[in-house]
Amino acid sequence: MKQFATFLLAVLCQSALATDTPKNIIMIVGDGMGPAYTTAYRMYADDPSTPEVEKTVFDRLLVGMASTHPDLVSGYVTDSAAGATALSTGVKSYNGAIAVDVNKKTVLTVLELAKMQGRKTGVAVTSEVNHATPASFGSHNESRKNYDQIANSYFDDKIKGQFVLDVMLGGGWKYFIREDRNLVDQFKAAGYQYVDELTQLETVKAGTPLLGLFADTGMPWALDSVDQMRLPILAKAAVRQLENDQGYFLLIEASQVDWGGHSNDIGAAMAEMHDLALTLEWLEQYIEKNPDTLMVLTADHSTGGLTIGVNGNYRWEPKWLKNLKASPSEIATQLMTAKDLEALANDLLGFALTKEEIASLNVIESDKPKAFYKAISKILDNRTFTGWTTTGHTGVDVQIFAKGLGSERFNGHMDNTDIAQTVFELLRNKK
Amino acid sequence: MKQFATFLLAVLCQSALATDTPKNIIMIVGDGMGPAYTTAYRMYADDPSTPEVEKTVFDRLLVGMASTHPDLVSGYVTDSAAGATALSTGVKSYNGAIAVDVNKKTVLTVLELAKMQGRKTGVAVTSEVNHATPASFGSHNESRKNYDQIANSYFDDKIKGQFVLDVMLGGGWKYFIREDRNLVDQFKAAGYQYVDELTQLETVKAGTPLLGLFADTGMPWALDSVDQMRLPILAKAAVRQLENDQGYFLLIEASQVDWGGHSNDIGAAMAEMHDLALTLEWLEQYIEKNPDTLMVLTADHSTGGLTIGVNGNYRWEPKWLKNLKASPSEIATQLMTAKDLEALANDLLGFALTKEEIASLNVIESDKPKAFYKAISKILDNRTFTGWTTTGHTGVDVQIFAKGLGSERFNGHMDNTDIAQTVFELLRNKK
Ligand SMILES: [Zn+2]
Ligand SMILES: [Zn+2]
Repeated sequence: MKQFATFLLAVLCQSALATDTPKNIIMIVGDGMGPAYTTAYRMYADDPSTPEVEKTVFDRLLVGMASTHPDLVSGYVTDSAAGATALSTGVKSYNGAIAVDVNKKTVLTVLELAKMQGRKTGVAVTSEVNHATPASFGSHNESRKNYDQIANSYFDDKIKGQFVLDVMLGGGWKYFIREDRNLVDQFKAAGYQYVDELTQLETVKAGTPLLGLFADTGMPWALDSVDQMRLPILAKAAVRQLENDQGYFLLIEASQVDWGGHSNDIGAAMAEMHDLALTLEWLEQYIEKNPDTLMVLTADHSTGGLTIGVNGNYRWEPKWLKNLKASPSEIATQLMTAKDLEALANDLLGFALTKEEIASLNVIESDKPKAFYKAISKILDNRTFTGWTTTGHTGVDVQIFAKGLGSERFNGHMDNTDIAQTVFELLRNKK
Repeated sequence: MKQFATFLLAVLCQSALATDTPKNIIMIVGDGMGPAYTTAYRMYADDPSTPEVEKTVFDRLLVGMASTHPDLVSGYVTDSAAGATALSTGVKSYNGAIAVDVNKKTVLTVLELAKMQGRKTGVAVTSEVNHATPASFGSHNESRKNYDQIANSYFDDKIKGQFVLDVMLGGGWKYFIREDRNLVDQFKAAGYQYVDELTQLETVKAGTPLLGLFADTGMPWALDSVDQMRLPILAKAAVRQLENDQGYFLLIEASQVDWGGHSNDIGAAMAEMHDLALTLEWLEQYIEKNPDTLMVLTADHSTGGLTIGVNGNYRWEPKWLKNLKASPSEIATQLMTAKDLEALANDLLGFALTKEEIASLNVIESDKPKAFYKAISKILDNRTFTGWTTTGHTGVDVQIFAKGLGSERFNGHMDNTDIAQTVFELLRNKK
């Protein structure tokens, strides 16, 4: 009898929740952020003056995990385009596909459906706004490499006579201000506010369409940005701009976790994770105040084959990453022309380098920036005991994090396409 | 109003479930089984004749993830002893600790509490039965290395006048049949049935105490065992032996996933995962028939820094692991004395080696078994695009899988100590 009552309650509970429809949906992608990244971030963020390891916002929001393989024409390891296409359309495709299926046929995205329903839509990313992930939500193309075409489509494509995206925040001057076409001028003429500095976001008129481009391609690394962060600024500005009675759909991407992984640069990767964590902490508060909103975060794949520990050592020591004054790549650039390499390296890295470490920098010819960058990353890997196996992606499952109305639907294991299908369902519940 | 009803329902639902107490608790440890292992296993088990990637038993059971760091005196990366101690006692300790705290003080384990409550208790593992993980549930020692002491304690320690473990299945002749002490004879004299071949498990008298030791130290690799499996046989036998009106607590360990990781041997690791998956599939059915039972599976840590993809390649090709006729280590041993190395290698590995691969074996002196083993593992790594960063452990979070009464308590992120604390709570709910 008690078991039956429990069962009945469980069924009631589920069906009550099943009718919930979030007014606003915020999807967040941590590009390249596999399980090793969130774990490493917990250690990186850990307060060493306390005996426990403090939980992070990722820990508070974890609900499940997702498989990420693309359509098997591309094998088991996805790129960001097929990964984002799965998350935006619910369809598996080939690596490189931007919201098209294996036959290169256009597939509806969750962002487009939201727009059709009268919601406002936006993207806020630290890559170019026309990079693979945001492109897969607001565009369709047979190849992620067609950057100009994708940028054009943001202006040329219409949904019910309206622009696809009410808000675009990220990098991309190179693609929006071209010799053959000036999309910034076109958007301005069509009524969009345009800004090209982060500080201008504080003074834009709320509730109006907004194009904000803050870099030629991707934005500078978090470590090289104002207050070593920029995603929370973009996210808050986007939400402020999108809020309206009909609700909104926003895609946020921490694009450069992936870039840290590709460069096997643990210093940059952890700072990008921190930039994302700050964004999530703000969103967590936002959902508390706006319980009719759903946020769901996942990764498209993991990058770099990052491991916490290497070469038989049972240790990982993130303390060497905590006092970086610039990104390892920026430090490399500055060291190339340094008068006193040792003094500058000590200052920028935030610790005193050993003779061997200095020697590893001194042997590099001063016109080899990549070699400098590699040598500095190597110093940080050695000190922190960080391992990498690739400059590409790996196939490990990624986590799903969610909070707000409908968040219980993302519990347990899902395929990445199930995440999109669930968002479609939630959108379609709208009255 | 609707929101309040939903809230009320959720609260009711939770409190109804909170009073549930499983009669039987089965904890399962996949030693060394981080997220890359379960993901790789899905690809390894995938039916290539279908367009989709079939979900595995791990996918069906996933509920959360756990952090694994030991007490910070040992840094952020755990060994199996501190990992198992966290899972058995709910207390963080130093690497090497067997159910003792950082001050080497004995701490109560969930298995011991179950025994105190009148439940039957058992361990079924593919390592020695006195190896770090089972030892941390049924023994206490300042060091995992004190194998003889730990084996002795299984006989010498008593709980309410009874032996700690009613059932012990695994390897360990070396520690139980010694010159200074024959524990097998002692257990037999005390009323335990003793068997030393897997087939004998079919004919033991149900419901009586049982010691089954099947190898000198750890059991042979799954790939070198009857039907390439043995954990399901051990698990079924243990359950049959333990079932009784008062309930039971059983620890099952897939001990050698970890050993595959330490050896950077993807062939052995995937076969160990399959051995575990078969066990879980049986347990899944068992819980369906016995809904008063809880099963909860996790890993103590991940091993080897395994990555699905390596060196910039966006691919992983497990097909080369599917026709192994023996473990890579056993293949190495056989090749050392082969008359026709190429023919034997082709036969045992299940594919035709290239000239370069044969050459990589031919250059090894025939008295170097480890070099042979390494060369074969390297061939498999190259063909499958498998990456490794260490012969030790890494700090990445591991998954939690659960089913049965009380399983919803393991949802989301937990620390490994929370898993034990939750099992303690469930045990203490007993009337
Ligand atoms: Zn990438
Ligand atoms: Zn181990």
